Amino acid sequence: MKRYVCAAAVIAAGLGLGLGASAQNGPSPAKYAVEIRQSIYTLIGANFGPIGAILKGDKAYDAAEVQKRLSRIAFLAPMLDEAFPEISNVGEPETKAKPEIWANRADFDKKLKAMQAAVKDLVEVNNRDKADNEAFKTAAMALGQACKNCHDTYRAK
Amino acid sequence: MKRYVCAAAVIAAGLGLGLGASAQNGPSPAKYAVEIRQSIYTLIGANFGPIGAILKGDKAYDAAEVQKRLSRIAFLAPMLDEAFPEISNVGEPETKAKPEIWANRADFDKKLKAMQAAVKDLVEVNNRDKADNEAFKTAAMALGQACKNCHDTYRAK
Repeated sequence: MKRYVCAAAVIAAGLGLGLGASAQNGPSPAKYAVEIRQSIYTLIGANFGPIGAILKGDKAYDAAEVQKRLSRIAFLAPMLDEAFPEISNVGEPETKAKPEIWANRADFDKKLKAMQAAVKDLVEVNNRDKADNEAFKTAAMALGQACKNCHDTYRAK
Repeated sequence: MKRYVCAAAVIAAGLGLGLGASAQNGPSPAKYAVEIRQSIYTLIGANFGPIGAILKGDKAYDAAEVQKRLSRIAFLAPMLDEAFPEISNVGEPETKAKPEIWANRADFDKKLKAMQAAVKDLVEVNNRDKADNEAFKTAAMALGQACKNCHDTYRAK
């Protein structure tokens, strides 16, 4: 077994970036943590985009599209729990995440949890009705508001 | 109902970035498509990192950790199907995705599907054994190799 492990290690090293070595060969741990966080937010924002467009009346409600977008947001939102390690408190311009996040961690976590709860609510409402009705709009607006509540306090302009 | 829709649109506009408006106020559609793609890869790489560390012998196998990482990779990998729209073929330095992707789309898609299949295999093997055994290592190495197969041809150094 030991020989097998060694062989795997050699091949793994050879595969390089294919094995997620970007943390080693690429940015510093702090910068990498920021990149991971920004990636989660980019994907949440990109998948909320079509829902925002429905709210604004720019796009028609499409059940399959909304379902797909919401399932992604629901998967991504809990990943934010790990996305604010102390090491990632590096200030602008590397991050728009304000130092107040780490200074007021309990309040920040409360706002993050409120956003995650709003995601769950929206998913439930949409699963139940699958329609562009008042309940959907209210729940989607509540999610947008939960995002904004945190951004207003903890994200640099 | 019309009045309600109008009110929602006004509030939605007011929420701004909270409603995923970054595509409108931020980067160009091409740059935004690249950002979304890079975000997916960043998260896949970050979640493969601990698995690569196990293969290299740098980290002990932890069933809960591996399960969490693999569930994320399995969720993210299919998102790559949408991550290479024509508009995102903008060349370096904006993207390391080579123009050959769009010139040889069928081959690229085949390599992408092979990676996604390798993810499924690894998830199945891990769900079955939940152990750092030979089957796990072989399947994890196969995924790393599938990543590398595509990177070697379609990603700029």
